[in-house]
Amino acid sequence: MRTSIATVCLSGSLEEKMAACAEAGFDGIEVFEPDLVGSDLSPEEIRARATRLGLSLDLYQPLRDFEGVDEATLTDNLRRAEARFVVMNRLGIDTVLVCSNVATATVESDEVAAEQLRRLGDLAASYGVRVAYEALAWGRYVDDYRRAWRIVERADHPAVGTCLDSFHILSRGHDPADIAWIPGEKIFFVQLADAPRLTMDVLSWSRHHRLFPGEGDFDLGGFVATVAGTGYAGPLSLEVFNDTFRQTDTHRTAAHALRSLVWLQDQAARRADDRADDRADDRAGGLATISRVAPPAAVDFVEVKAEDTSAVETMLDQLGLTFRGQHRTKPVRLWSAGEVRIVLNEQHARDLEPEVAGIGLQVEDAVAAEARAGQLAVAPVPRRTQADEQRLAGFAAPNGLEVFLAERPAPGVQPAWTHEFEHGLAPEDPGCYLAVDHVNLVHTWQEHDEAVLFWTSVLGLDAPPATEVASPQGLVRSRVMRTADGGVRLPLNVAPQVSPEYPEHVALACSDIWSVAARARARGMEFLPVPDNYYDDLAARLGLDAALLDRLRSHQLLLDRGPEGEFLHFYTRRVGRVFFEVVQRAAGYDGYGAGDAPVRLASQARLDRVASVGRGRRGRS
Amino acid sequence: MRTSIATVCLSGSLEEKMAACAEAGFDGIEVFEPDLVGSDLSPEEIRARATRLGLSLDLYQPLRDFEGVDEATLTDNLRRAEARFVVMNRLGIDTVLVCSNVATATVESDEVAAEQLRRLGDLAASYGVRVAYEALAWGRYVDDYRRAWRIVERADHPAVGTCLDSFHILSRGHDPADIAWIPGEKIFFVQLADAPRLTMDVLSWSRHHRLFPGEGDFDLGGFVATVAGTGYAGPLSLEVFNDTFRQTDTHRTAAHALRSLVWLQDQAARRADDRADDRADDRAGGLATISRVAPPAAVDFVEVKAEDTSAVETMLDQLGLTFRGQHRTKPVRLWSAGEVRIVLNEQHARDLEPEVAGIGLQVEDAVAAEARAGQLAVAPVPRRTQADEQRLAGFAAPNGLEVFLAERPAPGVQPAWTHEFEHGLAPEDPGCYLAVDHVNLVHTWQEHDEAVLFWTSVLGLDAPPATEVASPQGLVRSRVMRTADGGVRLPLNVAPQVSPEYPEHVALACSDIWSVAARARARGMEFLPVPDNYYDDLAARLGLDAALLDRLRSHQLLLDRGPEGEFLHFYTRRVGRVFFEVVQRAAGYDGYGAGDAPVRLASQARLDRVASVGRGRRGRS
Repeated sequence: MRTSIATVCLSGSLEEKMAACAEAGFDGIEVFEPDLVGSDLSPEEIRARATRLGLSLDLYQPLRDFEGVDEATLTDNLRRAEARFVVMNRLGIDTVLVCSNVATATVESDEVAAEQLRRLGDLAASYGVRVAYEALAWGRYVDDYRRAWRIVERADHPAVGTCLDSFHILSRGHDPADIAWIPGEKIFFVQLADAPRLTMDVLSWSRHHRLFPGEGDFDLGGFVATVAGTGYAGPLSLEVFNDTFRQTDTHRTAAHALRSLVWLQDQAARRADDRADDRADDRAGGLATISRVAPPAAVDFVEVKAEDTSAVETMLDQLGLTFRGQHRTKPVRLWSAGEVRIVLNEQHARDLEPEVAGIGLQVEDAVAAEARAGQLAVAPVPRRTQADEQRLAGFAAPNGLEVFLAERPAPGVQPAWTHEFEHGLAPEDPGCYLAVDHVNLVHTWQEHDEAVLFWTSVLGLDAPPATEVASPQGLVRSRVMRTADGGVRLPLNVAPQVSPEYPEHVALACSDIWSVAARARARGMEFLPVPDNYYDDLAARLGLDAALLDRLRSHQLLLDRGPEGEFLHFYTRRVGRVFFEVVQRAAGYDGYGAGDAPVRLASQARLDRVASVGRGRRGRS
Repeated sequence: MRTSIATVCLSGSLEEKMAACAEAGFDGIEVFEPDLVGSDLSPEEIRARATRLGLSLDLYQPLRDFEGVDEATLTDNLRRAEARFVVMNRLGIDTVLVCSNVATATVESDEVAAEQLRRLGDLAASYGVRVAYEALAWGRYVDDYRRAWRIVERADHPAVGTCLDSFHILSRGHDPADIAWIPGEKIFFVQLADAPRLTMDVLSWSRHHRLFPGEGDFDLGGFVATVAGTGYAGPLSLEVFNDTFRQTDTHRTAAHALRSLVWLQDQAARRADDRADDRADDRAGGLATISRVAPPAAVDFVEVKAEDTSAVETMLDQLGLTFRGQHRTKPVRLWSAGEVRIVLNEQHARDLEPEVAGIGLQVEDAVAAEARAGQLAVAPVPRRTQADEQRLAGFAAPNGLEVFLAERPAPGVQPAWTHEFEHGLAPEDPGCYLAVDHVNLVHTWQEHDEAVLFWTSVLGLDAPPATEVASPQGLVRSRVMRTADGGVRLPLNVAPQVSPEYPEHVALACSDIWSVAARARARGMEFLPVPDNYYDDLAARLGLDAALLDRLRSHQLLLDRGPEGEFLHFYTRRVGRVFFEVVQRAAGYDGYGAGDAPVRLASQARLDRVASVGRGRRGRS
């Protein structure tokens, strides 16, 4: 189906928005009235520019507070409408959105509303314009799409149809199944927005918390499958207001928006396929599909990049990993233990403090996964590869992390790319380390929703609900992107601001954390200090015996215990923007020791001695 | 009454929080458990530090999910409690907060809850600890302070009392009047938080949207007056969780917090006095009062500061203001017209682009107003004054603006300080300009709530509800601080980020905007361009006749029309971080042309050609 987006979703001027939408690959746009009014381009110029960019102008929105009014108000409303139709003719837009009246309606009568829409239809038709009537969730009398459709049916005018908006329907908990009864040709427009499930007034919810499809809690796949089943042939158009997107780079948001629509169509096509199997009736032919892939099985490697990675190497050595060699042609070194592989990269890293720069994931079919990423408009990462080197498909995640896809090797076999490393040692103690347990990534709040969509749509990770962790600088929102079996776990943390004080970290799973900790200490590693008060609190909470408590304290280990098992872990100090955690999961424990995170953050803050930010009128910009 | 604050309100380590609370002047603190657990100070060290700083440790919080449980759980809960009491003895804290059970309660019985609290009371008493039992708004069975009090009454134990929390009471809409029936000596603790009226689930509301007293919609003055009326002699303690405060400088937040408590006590004392008049019964003797002042009557002057103010002078000349002289001893110049006075200051302004640096306000009693500001812990602005110069009391608003207080001159008389300016001209056309209509100030979202409290508590301005304006970079939240008669109006705008693209502006009220605009144009002023589409839209919306439309367009004037009157205005281009607006209000119009703001913002953005911010993994910190 055709893709469209309301200009209100994006930041910048109308020209900037049009350019970004065209570049991202949208077929058309909805022109939001304030964007037109604030533009110094004439309607004719806007029309010509859209033509040149290959964008259709799909909808002019909106005409508000039209129907259900007294005769004098209607006369004025028709005058207003006609002035809009003149502008629409200049723009070359043939569909106008009419939202159900929220302010001036005084007559609650479907018959009156239908009659007034019929009169609007007559006027619109004389300008070649169609009227798409939509129920707003907070409409005064009409707040249900089924009632809006009944009014349209009763208006019975060729220039009057309905507009369906997923937010207004699903936020009210209205069952979208009844959409199936509306003839596709009477659906003049479809607007899509996702949203988190929030208990708040629907107007604020709508105005501040809409999300792109795939980022919230609505079943938009089912919604679009139902719409497609009616034979609707118009565009699927995004209408997402949100405090974040409008403060983000226009081109980036446009690409992100299109990704959500491509993903959604594929989801809807699957749903339509499922239904077609049941009903032997497949009318959803317009939905585009993309390559399907299984979620990744495991973390292949983590890449840490810095001008000088030697401090990280010292730490890996203390932790008991083994130097496996230097890359044949690049200033890149490999350390490993069991299925844990850490790549240290000093290439193109001038002035860079150590940071998590990339992550490799093992997938069943790297070719299909790469194709899917391309279909979802993910930017590839250019990598130079020399002759007979393994080429890994790479692309950039929303926080700049580089993600690489590698075919999963047979059990017990090291990945092919590891053979490009020379002059290393054989693994010393392969038994203790298991794999990378999780990689904790930091995002700004502007990046968070985009990241959720990225990891779910491109790589098929799940996104369970977020939690919040207290830090010295406020609540840190944390959402774990993961596979069902826990083979890949990526906690995304939303930091108050991204800075060295919010480092990322790599957690290594092992089967004997006591021996790892003892050996690390023997090799001189400085652990992140755990205050005595933590152990007093642990004793109070869990009623631990003194011997275990002493042992934990002497190893500086932290302990979390849930109904389903136990979690032992410790942290290294940070080097640049990265640190390591070693963890041991017992008896089905599936968490991350979130209760210990405030202690970790307080301890890190103590080490960092964060200077308060000086503020003043002149130093603000 | 004694002032206290929960450490959870502030950012930083426990040591930083304690230092900031002491410096701000708090009498005590509540120790939030994670702050203790994350600290590397031992309980004894924390106790000694508090003693040195002169802070009492008023409350340890909280013991959760205690009562209404089965016997096995109670046994474990008593074990947990005892471990906390040991820590409290080490800290020297004698009161523990017990919140009503939200998770583990299985028995809904006041008798059982009372019996279990009695057993806790026995244990607590053996450690010299008192138990303050509080109803959480989302408690499983106990979510009303009246029920919590009934349980405490039934427990009938000297070591068991109740804790009242304004948020948990007022968020549920429970009438605080029944507090009057609780004996003051059985109220063991009082926690205070304000909040905006929001329709959302109370847990999220509580966790993310609490505010300091005076910043939200709760009647805390009445609440505290009622509490004081019981004879309660403990501290008034702030417990405000909020996504903002914890990301703000610790010392600044502490000063801001104390200001809210000082203001609140004064408010409560007034309320208690009112009641005492009615009932001839004044028991609220513990409430501290501060100087009372009338709100300012008018804007005395606006100060624009820059290394080079000549571009501003050119603009003021084009607008028809008159150069009134150079200051006798400083590089400061005065321009005026009618009651509009603009001070241009080049002192200590190296590299500074023009910005609104200060505002003078005319008050009835400058001495009392200055005393009040001091009592509210507002930082004074040091000003050097030479012999026989007018000394104006000055202090800093939250966004760094300097605020000066001047005694109101007799009608028609120029303020005394204007006589320090020499070699200027007599006013050319005193008839057209009236006064400064409003000064539009920009804040970050972190500064907004603090600014609301500042302007209401220190200067007695009102804070009507906020509105939102669409800008190219997202919604701009706008809240107008003002006096009832409109003599002083300060719209506070919360910009996505404070930058030159979000300038502040000074609006000048006049009685003949057509002549001001014509003269300005004749003198070569470049207006902020208004796009043709705006006039097309104006015609469509208001049905204006062609002659008026042409006249508006040719003068580049904007027009807003409300039910109560009309508003004509135009904008200059910006110079540095400041621009001017000229306005004419007709027939009781009381707004600011908010509907025109998106056009203004789009036009400014066009002139600024805001470059998209380049982003990437390395450039983030």
